[in-house]
Amino acid sequence: MSKDFFDKHRKSLAAAAEACKDRSYFSLFPETPDRHRGGESAALSGQSAFEQMRGHPFALEQPGTIGRIGGEVSPYTQAALDIHYPQADPDALFEFAHKAMPRWVDADPETRLGVCLEIVDRLYDRVFESAQAVMHTAGQSALMSYAGSGTNALDRGVEALVYAQAAMANVTREAVWERRFGSATLRLQKRYRLVPRGVAVVFTCATFPTWNAYPAMFANLATGNPVIVKPHPTAILPMAIAVRVAREVIADAGFDPNLVALCLDTLETPLGKVLVKHPHTSIVDFTGSARFGSWVEANAWPALCYSETSGVNTVVVESVGDLDAVVKSLATTMSLFSAQMCTSPQNIYVPASGIRSSAGRVSAEEFGERLATAMRSIATDARRAAPILAAIQSPSTLALIESIREAGAHSGRVLLESAPYEHPQFPRARTGSPLLIHLTADDTMRHLYGEERFGPIGFVIETPDAEAALAHATADAKRAGAITAFLYSEDEAYIARAELGFSHSGAQLTTNLTGPMPLNFAAAYSDYHVTGLNPAGNATLTDVAFVAARFRITQSRRPVSG
Amino acid sequence: MSKDFFDKHRKSLAAAAEACKDRSYFSLFPETPDRHRGGESAALSGQSAFEQMRGHPFALEQPGTIGRIGGEVSPYTQAALDIHYPQADPDALFEFAHKAMPRWVDADPETRLGVCLEIVDRLYDRVFESAQAVMHTAGQSALMSYAGSGTNALDRGVEALVYAQAAMANVTREAVWERRFGSATLRLQKRYRLVPRGVAVVFTCATFPTWNAYPAMFANLATGNPVIVKPHPTAILPMAIAVRVAREVIADAGFDPNLVALCLDTLETPLGKVLVKHPHTSIVDFTGSARFGSWVEANAWPALCYSETSGVNTVVVESVGDLDAVVKSLATTMSLFSAQMCTSPQNIYVPASGIRSSAGRVSAEEFGERLATAMRSIATDARRAAPILAAIQSPSTLALIESIREAGAHSGRVLLESAPYEHPQFPRARTGSPLLIHLTADDTMRHLYGEERFGPIGFVIETPDAEAALAHATADAKRAGAITAFLYSEDEAYIARAELGFSHSGAQLTTNLTGPMPLNFAAAYSDYHVTGLNPAGNATLTDVAFVAARFRITQSRRPVSG
Repeated sequence: MSKDFFDKHRKSLAAAAEACKDRSYFSLFPETPDRHRGGESAALSGQSAFEQMRGHPFALEQPGTIGRIGGEVSPYTQAALDIHYPQADPDALFEFAHKAMPRWVDADPETRLGVCLEIVDRLYDRVFESAQAVMHTAGQSALMSYAGSGTNALDRGVEALVYAQAAMANVTREAVWERRFGSATLRLQKRYRLVPRGVAVVFTCATFPTWNAYPAMFANLATGNPVIVKPHPTAILPMAIAVRVAREVIADAGFDPNLVALCLDTLETPLGKVLVKHPHTSIVDFTGSARFGSWVEANAWPALCYSETSGVNTVVVESVGDLDAVVKSLATTMSLFSAQMCTSPQNIYVPASGIRSSAGRVSAEEFGERLATAMRSIATDARRAAPILAAIQSPSTLALIESIREAGAHSGRVLLESAPYEHPQFPRARTGSPLLIHLTADDTMRHLYGEERFGPIGFVIETPDAEAALAHATADAKRAGAITAFLYSEDEAYIARAELGFSHSGAQLTTNLTGPMPLNFAAAYSDYHVTGLNPAGNATLTDVAFVAARFRITQSRRPVSG
Repeated sequence: MSKDFFDKHRKSLAAAAEACKDRSYFSLFPETPDRHRGGESAALSGQSAFEQMRGHPFALEQPGTIGRIGGEVSPYTQAALDIHYPQADPDALFEFAHKAMPRWVDADPETRLGVCLEIVDRLYDRVFESAQAVMHTAGQSALMSYAGSGTNALDRGVEALVYAQAAMANVTREAVWERRFGSATLRLQKRYRLVPRGVAVVFTCATFPTWNAYPAMFANLATGNPVIVKPHPTAILPMAIAVRVAREVIADAGFDPNLVALCLDTLETPLGKVLVKHPHTSIVDFTGSARFGSWVEANAWPALCYSETSGVNTVVVESVGDLDAVVKSLATTMSLFSAQMCTSPQNIYVPASGIRSSAGRVSAEEFGERLATAMRSIATDARRAAPILAAIQSPSTLALIESIREAGAHSGRVLLESAPYEHPQFPRARTGSPLLIHLTADDTMRHLYGEERFGPIGFVIETPDAEAALAHATADAKRAGAITAFLYSEDEAYIARAELGFSHSGAQLTTNLTGPMPLNFAAAYSDYHVTGLNPAGNATLTDVAFVAARFRITQSRRPVSG
């Protein structure tokens, strides 16, 4: 067996590596579900696999099982999934992970990379099943569950494998070192070994679990580290499927499946801090709230910590060519998955003097109205609302909308009221269209817009002028964290200042984009996701630093005999 | 100017990069002082430059100077150096470092690498001056000050530049990304920028200041980060010289010299914690005690932390070919710089049943006696003692020898008493020959040998058998930290177990080495120094991880026009 999987996927990995090098477009997978290699039956069997899991114990045999756990509720049906997962004793998972390590460490990097690529391949086989799981836990639309949480997430996983391969290949395994000491010549044979850190704990989030999970899992596995996956208690199923597939492939390759395990907790009795401070945790990969994320970053030592949390993503609208196109793109992006993405924009800054456009100056007020109208037309269009808005993952988001609505109406003006929309397929879906509030930039308003308001909540914020708009947007990123930023300007000097400003504040900038691509789409192999320069996280998908410290180098040397 | 320096040193860097790739022998510099390009006059003018600094203010113009400071005492004369350095207001250093950053960040990597290589080159010009400074602060011998703290340290700095160059070159700066969305094709122009973290604080230690300082300084500068150097208050001068040279070169290259500054404190009023927790500290490079180092590692967040502290380096003697050669090598290495190196061995484990040798079995007792005899012959030989033992950096080391001697005599047997030796050139030198104690491996003895005893203190420790010797040695490394380990064995199966065991415990192993090279010599470009797998530090000289996270990647993207 050994390198069979690597040979099978060698070309794919090489093509992915090429794409990482020039950061051009690449995907291992066809762009749309209808082109899945399994044909239409793949979609149907995915759906049916999901349905059959409901009401049953989840089939996952792993050691240390001390009970059953799981209380997921579908955002689409608001009914319990009623799937019962193994509840694990964390100490047992670490113990068995350690037992599984030696053979995995002894396997060469290509063998490990091959196993990881085969896991990717089999997850693609089951991407419809996984998409159903994402829909009915995270609340994503069918398409986003397939493309964003499926193929795109797998591509991000493969991207991490590319960097893992390069980092490991950078270390020569043997050297002969020769030097004169006085009249003698010494020759030393040196051997270098790659040694993994130890067990990695991968925390996954409620709204987009697989997207950060796959890169973390594969970066760890490829470099030799076992993985314990700790999903958010409301979105277990996508990760349970991934863990099951990973364990299957690992066993098929002749290794101990306990290299990957699932560790669950409940909202009432969280295990997060226990796992971060566990004496056998060597690496923590965390995706989740900024609040807990900060604690993890500060307390993970001596474990390494890689984090993605969240932030206040901003839009600056200084001047535009085609206002309709801009408004349409913004409306779609502000609505996409009800803004429950770490890349969704929240604060839109507009100069009080208005926006220059090809059709003349548009007042800030008019801009706000037009944006609200465009967003309303999405929310009230039965054919568009469901695929774009999808469902609300957590009931607490609806409560947040309510409280921000109240405060916003007091301090500013409600441009667009949030309301449930009728989902054509799931009449009991938990839905809520975006709330949009008009404010004036002001320190007294910062309690409203100065931090992340997770969910479909946006602010159109008037600033004294265009420079102030930029200053506010970049300050939001630096202070509260931001992954993305968006700019509309016809002024190249202004664009240049914005590029520099957002670069300093560590937000990835998209300028003057309109058209069919969601503004916040992040392409695997091309778009670096999270800079580490602001509080939105410290780990970039994917740069060299994301993988290089996950293994260490040990050496032994001895005189060359003879 | 711009790339002139890079062009000047391009070939050197390329040759160094080749060596890093295959980890073969390389040095930018001739091996011995007599081959220095400056000829004999370089040595004389270095000496005279040092003499002229004594009793004067140190010529270093940097902002934020609030007074004069400095109380160094030469270990060779036990007289005050009487050099008065600028005492800085740390806040001012950060402020001016930030002011200096933008142009440095805008410069391309090759320009920055060129400036760093020119600093290396000018430090080589002044290596004799720097060697005098190292001698009269750290207490190293003249040759070690020149080769270890001079050329070898500079080589380690260049090695860091090689990895910085590769990590930055890995990121393409521009891409065109093209993808179909439905019937439309979108083309995005993407631009990627390398953004440094911010100000790095580089802590340097008392006994080997430049060796870790140069790699840290250059890794930071090359990737765009300003450097504030915080030397140990008893070993300022080598770093003051380095800072002055760096500032000169940076200014010559047309950049703001405040990219590198010196921040001093005193033993009575340390600034270490202030600097680690300073809100503008983005990176901490720490070399020093394990105790403070642990605090730094645990508390540096949100700053990155790269550390080298210390540990218990071990020797296992299972069986030997030529016992005389082994004893000679061990005696020299245990004596070298009075074992004040982070790579000096401390604990020598020997099976109670003795050591197999080509001349028959040698009892543990006899081995201890022979080692003590060989060490005594170094300490009592006027021609060998000075160049090998050099001087004792800190008076507290003599007190430690005294207290361990007492405890050792109580719990075991003193094989070799420590005593001052007469230095032929410096009659008032602070000297102390090695103390060697015979013990039986035992939990009740661990208080003696279970932690680092910094200085010329060694233990010959009897273990029940050869396997126990290995178990004790690897356990020392894992628990107390270790950088090096040494093994003598004629049994290939035993060697293989040792290689695996020390690899797991993260100590770099040298097997069956005898002859002219000090056992603990670490070669730039070839030997990885510190694994990060045990408490002796987390930063490896030099792997990809040592540089890759010192900068971040930001991006901007916009539709391709036309």
